[in-house]
Amino acid sequence: MYEYGMVRSQAEAAKNASVDLGLLNTQRKNDILLAMADGLMAREKEILAANEKDMDRGRKNDLKSSFLDRLLLNHERLAQMAEGIRQVADLPDPVGKILNGSTLSNGLTIMKVTVPLGLIGIIYEARPNVTADAIALCVKSGNAVILKGGREAILSNKAVSDALIEAGCRAGLPEGAVQFVNIEEREAVSELIHLDGLVDVVIPRGGAGLIHSVVQNASVPVIETGAGVCHTYVDARANVDMAVAIALNAKVNRPSTCNSMETLLVHKDIADRFMPAMVAAYEKAHVTLFGDDRARSYQAAMEKATEKDWATEYNDLRLSVRIVDSLEEAVAHIRRYGTGHSEAIVTDDYAAARRFQQVVDAACVYVNASTRFTDGFQFGFGAEIGISTQKLHARGPMALPELTTTKYLINGNGQVRS
Amino acid sequence: MYEYGMVRSQAEAAKNASVDLGLLNTQRKNDILLAMADGLMAREKEILAANEKDMDRGRKNDLKSSFLDRLLLNHERLAQMAEGIRQVADLPDPVGKILNGSTLSNGLTIMKVTVPLGLIGIIYEARPNVTADAIALCVKSGNAVILKGGREAILSNKAVSDALIEAGCRAGLPEGAVQFVNIEEREAVSELIHLDGLVDVVIPRGGAGLIHSVVQNASVPVIETGAGVCHTYVDARANVDMAVAIALNAKVNRPSTCNSMETLLVHKDIADRFMPAMVAAYEKAHVTLFGDDRARSYQAAMEKATEKDWATEYNDLRLSVRIVDSLEEAVAHIRRYGTGHSEAIVTDDYAAARRFQQVVDAACVYVNASTRFTDGFQFGFGAEIGISTQKLHARGPMALPELTTTKYLINGNGQVRS
Repeated sequence: MYEYGMVRSQAEAAKNASVDLGLLNTQRKNDILLAMADGLMAREKEILAANEKDMDRGRKNDLKSSFLDRLLLNHERLAQMAEGIRQVADLPDPVGKILNGSTLSNGLTIMKVTVPLGLIGIIYEARPNVTADAIALCVKSGNAVILKGGREAILSNKAVSDALIEAGCRAGLPEGAVQFVNIEEREAVSELIHLDGLVDVVIPRGGAGLIHSVVQNASVPVIETGAGVCHTYVDARANVDMAVAIALNAKVNRPSTCNSMETLLVHKDIADRFMPAMVAAYEKAHVTLFGDDRARSYQAAMEKATEKDWATEYNDLRLSVRIVDSLEEAVAHIRRYGTGHSEAIVTDDYAAARRFQQVVDAACVYVNASTRFTDGFQFGFGAEIGISTQKLHARGPMALPELTTTKYLINGNGQVRS
Repeated sequence: MYEYGMVRSQAEAAKNASVDLGLLNTQRKNDILLAMADGLMAREKEILAANEKDMDRGRKNDLKSSFLDRLLLNHERLAQMAEGIRQVADLPDPVGKILNGSTLSNGLTIMKVTVPLGLIGIIYEARPNVTADAIALCVKSGNAVILKGGREAILSNKAVSDALIEAGCRAGLPEGAVQFVNIEEREAVSELIHLDGLVDVVIPRGGAGLIHSVVQNASVPVIETGAGVCHTYVDARANVDMAVAIALNAKVNRPSTCNSMETLLVHKDIADRFMPAMVAAYEKAHVTLFGDDRARSYQAAMEKATEKDWATEYNDLRLSVRIVDSLEEAVAHIRRYGTGHSEAIVTDDYAAARRFQQVVDAACVYVNASTRFTDGFQFGFGAEIGISTQKLHARGPMALPELTTTKYLINGNGQVRS
């Protein structure tokens, strides 16, 4: 029987600590991060032992091997996590930037300055590296954080966060600023997403089900991340070799990621030259195709794509294919089925490239490149807390600047309004 | 009996039109705005006649005189609305700004560019000028808009929006881009705030009740505006004359606004010098005070402030007063009862001023000035669609840039990810 109030107590402690954390200067925060990285490795034995218990339970519960692989920790993966924390220490501090300012005619000076959001909630699934990532990014951006991970990884996540909190606090992290919710019940998530006025934003990280549930049910602000039904449109005037290479990469490079292509749109005028080579490449890569009637004429075994297929994020070696009459038809398809994540056109036609980038409504719109590049590290941000598919606050790969808000500081010498 | 689907049809038409509207260049949008301003004045007779009917109904329904005053239109007010539209035409276009960009080592170029949000819903109360304001700001920022005003002003709002839409469309506004919901039933609001995937953001403008209801019930993204329980803290080392002038202005300049002060906090060490002059000034301005026990010792008639008083936005010539032992106590009070809108300190102490601006968590934090300056026009933005009291996307006075989102444009020549 779940006891409401436990998560609230943790959030209150974190929110209180957020004031002092938000005032730490860059040097102090970096010292804390470096201490955390060392502390993580110093506790390797305990962490790997905890992970072994999670793995045992997972095997007993017949979890999928891909799931167990994400859950597994070993020396190398732990060292990567520590290295990730050190890299965050190296990134520029997003807090305290003066974005702009002015002096009014009455002498008031106004500055718009970046400040931490306050308290961030992270709700995530089975990968323990998210624990270290999220803590590092929140500390660097001056935010307190409350973490609710998946129960399959609870011992691993607890061990990782304990190590980071202990080492961090010894180095000056305000007591309580990092909170790990050590509760398996789902009600803990429900409590967390209803702490209005206490949690400044919740960021769900994981599968579409988790994200949808948080977005629909939360009363605190949420940044929606992830779900990607991404398209590649091969225009009438595409370079066929380039189009095959891009459309292959976008599907098979790492199918489980949100920036992988789920639907290929092909202009009818290039289909006869493009489709045979493309189908052969997909067959070699074991990609199963679903298509409209015209696409199916290029592969005997191709099943008919259903309405559901066009809207599905397969995250797998499956792909929907449709032949379209025009760029506008491709754009209309993307408008209807896309999730606003990443969309690409392959073309040698200047006007088509420009039009596609202007009218497609998505976080990232590519010309002649694979959608797989949508990623905070690939974009050169040095970090990523998720990929926002919403339009407010942040859109696309989110890194440290997206974990801040702003505040106006107004200084005067007695100004009143007439 | 309300027929669901009517608002959805209007929103779909607006969303379709938003694509073309978003692509109009600045000159075209300005031409539309200037035509709208002229069109508004050309229809003065019909608009004032419609307003007279709203006024008649309002008088029959015994609406408060302050309410009727906000509802009233006349030649001068209409001319001000037209002038407001022309001023929006003069402002810089917020769309198409390239915020930053880079070239990756693989040759991909990445640009972050501002784009319209898409379709904005505005839900507002009785002031018909909001109709013209909101349409102008949305058109300038390339957004389609769907307007749902209060029923007390429905004929006036309809006449204003008809005039603007007709003149706008003649000048090139895409058909359907501006939609006025000509429905009195409350269910229309409920339908509007649940059009997920169609309405990109809803901005409620009006009283606390309206805003709270929209924030709590909407499933589409909302930007919370308005509610302001603003404080002025008179520090131990304040200049007494300046403090009296600021605390008087912040309360009485225009008490109905959200940036007016609702609670005065006074350091105990300055109370004996400050309070007698302050109380005398408030008495002269007919301000009714509610206080804690120490504050009440400075005015015989002062009633005791209740827990509810500290949390109330009076919007009226009433004020809560509390004597505090320290700056930290003042900050703690603001943390507990403030709404994150505007907070001020009056002090000659450098460290106190700096500390207050650092630790108070609000959109606008003032030193030695009246909170009444929190306003898009006062800040020099040339416009205001509301004052955001939330932390995501926009905080403080919102003008044209806050009505945009961003999109990454990535251009390559065949890059794939390894």
